[in-house]
Amino acid sequence: MIDLAPFEGKRILITGGLGFIGSNIAHALAGRCAELTLVDSLIPQYGGNLFNISGIEDHVQVNIADVRDESSMDYLVRGKDYIFNMAGQVSHLDSMSDPYVDLEINCRSQLSILEACKKNNPGVKIVYAGTRGQYGRAEHLPVSEDTPQRPTDVNGINKMAGEWYHIVYNNVHGIRACSLRLTNTYGPRHHMRTSRQGVLSWFIRIAIDGGTIRLFGGGEQQRDFDYVDDVVEALLLAAASDEANGQVFNVGSGRPTSLKEAAELAVEIAGAGGVEIADFPADKRKIEIGNYYADCASIKRVLGWEARTPLREGIQKTVEFFRANRLRYWDDE
Amino acid sequence: MIDLAPFEGKRILITGGLGFIGSNIAHALAGRCAELTLVDSLIPQYGGNLFNISGIEDHVQVNIADVRDESSMDYLVRGKDYIFNMAGQVSHLDSMSDPYVDLEINCRSQLSILEACKKNNPGVKIVYAGTRGQYGRAEHLPVSEDTPQRPTDVNGINKMAGEWYHIVYNNVHGIRACSLRLTNTYGPRHHMRTSRQGVLSWFIRIAIDGGTIRLFGGGEQQRDFDYVDDVVEALLLAAASDEANGQVFNVGSGRPTSLKEAAELAVEIAGAGGVEIADFPADKRKIEIGNYYADCASIKRVLGWEARTPLREGIQKTVEFFRANRLRYWDDE
Repeated sequence: MIDLAPFEGKRILITGGLGFIGSNIAHALAGRCAELTLVDSLIPQYGGNLFNISGIEDHVQVNIADVRDESSMDYLVRGKDYIFNMAGQVSHLDSMSDPYVDLEINCRSQLSILEACKKNNPGVKIVYAGTRGQYGRAEHLPVSEDTPQRPTDVNGINKMAGEWYHIVYNNVHGIRACSLRLTNTYGPRHHMRTSRQGVLSWFIRIAIDGGTIRLFGGGEQQRDFDYVDDVVEALLLAAASDEANGQVFNVGSGRPTSLKEAAELAVEIAGAGGVEIADFPADKRKIEIGNYYADCASIKRVLGWEARTPLREGIQKTVEFFRANRLRYWDDE
Repeated sequence: MIDLAPFEGKRILITGGLGFIGSNIAHALAGRCAELTLVDSLIPQYGGNLFNISGIEDHVQVNIADVRDESSMDYLVRGKDYIFNMAGQVSHLDSMSDPYVDLEINCRSQLSILEACKKNNPGVKIVYAGTRGQYGRAEHLPVSEDTPQRPTDVNGINKMAGEWYHIVYNNVHGIRACSLRLTNTYGPRHHMRTSRQGVLSWFIRIAIDGGTIRLFGGGEQQRDFDYVDDVVEALLLAAASDEANGQVFNVGSGRPTSLKEAAELAVEIAGAGGVEIADFPADKRKIEIGNYYADCASIKRVLGWEARTPLREGIQKTVEFFRANRLRYWDDE
């Protein structure tokens, strides 16, 4: 694990703190900082889950609030040393059917969090969770941070805007901020109730349940799967380093994996389930981004980070976690 | 003038239709189409001015409404063949002091116009006014459309999002749309009451009034000045061509001009005023984008457009227009 000394005695806020990545940051920091506040709206179809803080309940303060609630955010940012700004609407399909909700959460709320910091806590450091969806379809691989952003859906557009608010507030107002463009993160504490939030975790759920994973278009699409512990390390390193301020970094394994390969590995490791090839549904095809894997040279150079967990090991840990806890994630449905 | 046949008998909506560019489009189309509706909110500090339609009053329908008013826009887009979507908050400084207004106008309203078209008029063609502010500081010149967008202020971010909503609605929902990234447009019917809306027109106002043009940082910053009639031609060509759908085009003279050169030309042609070098105010320096001029090869190749009006001729026409009409633009202050 990386050095947590920069967070000792510090006050930390995590938006989306009961969600997948937010709660994994909380597990990494629990007991190491002076104050660890998790803001989450617990909107049912989103990623928040109170079980995600099982085992660290005594080290965190849970504050149920929506990042769209400006006055609450205005208060909650005060006195914090670091904000991990992970709250977001993440579904690509939902962003197309209800673009306003996506705009409110991924654009407007980002602006209000930054305005709250500007007014009440200009010395804070903010780390934002960007996404590979900002790039849209890759013209050449791997995708570096210099690649023009050409999002293919409203979610990608709003995440792009949300990221750039952070960079502009860093550059113009001196609110230290940076963005990590995450790719397909998977691992313990992921939202498992719908297929909307992460393809590999969804494969793992199906495999554990002994079901059939249906792959669209042959399953040859390449993705860049990142185990959540590695992503948390990247976020912590970015928070601790002033070299990161105003910067945008790709975070990925740097290694392409086909959906088919990932699905077959999930089935093999779970020792259950199967894989089947199917046709593309029309709504998914239209916003499908094609192959993607990230060029992560920049974050390695500036922050010394690179992914450490092999895919097989990450899937093993994920299968173990969800086998032990499926009741908390989907089996009560 | 370009071929207006594609607009004969058509029904056209111009958002921001009483503003600078919108009203110049209206002058080009007046009497040539079946219906020409201008939507404008006439917010005092923005660009709308009823005098901008002087001479074409009988050919246009003026509808006072704010693009933020979703139900009005929902109605107004119906039955139109073309929408020139020019309404926007254009001040970079205002976007930093009140980012929410900029977001409402430049992001959310764009989404609601597109949603209205999706619901009520999916066959329409929309032309959006993007801006060179989306690029931020140029890393190399001239700037082509492939250059990564790195906006330096909230306005640039929101315009970038507004543009991409159009492209995504074109690609996913089949609402034909394209964006022209405009640079420093100047000419008759510009808003002249503040310096916030266009540097060269502001220079021209000062020169006409016999005042002193103050240039920051030596006045060596390069800009790409485009006469409004040329810009209107580009917008009309983009509307008429299905080759433009889903595309983003730079629109510019392709020729850099320093602020000093432009200011001196304004003074020379007006036969009045003077030029003075001054220090950069802090708020302007922080969002100053540095030198800019556009690579316009793409719009020339696809639409056959290039700027035709030499700077001297454009400034002459602008000086003549505002000398004749200064009472309507600023002299009643």
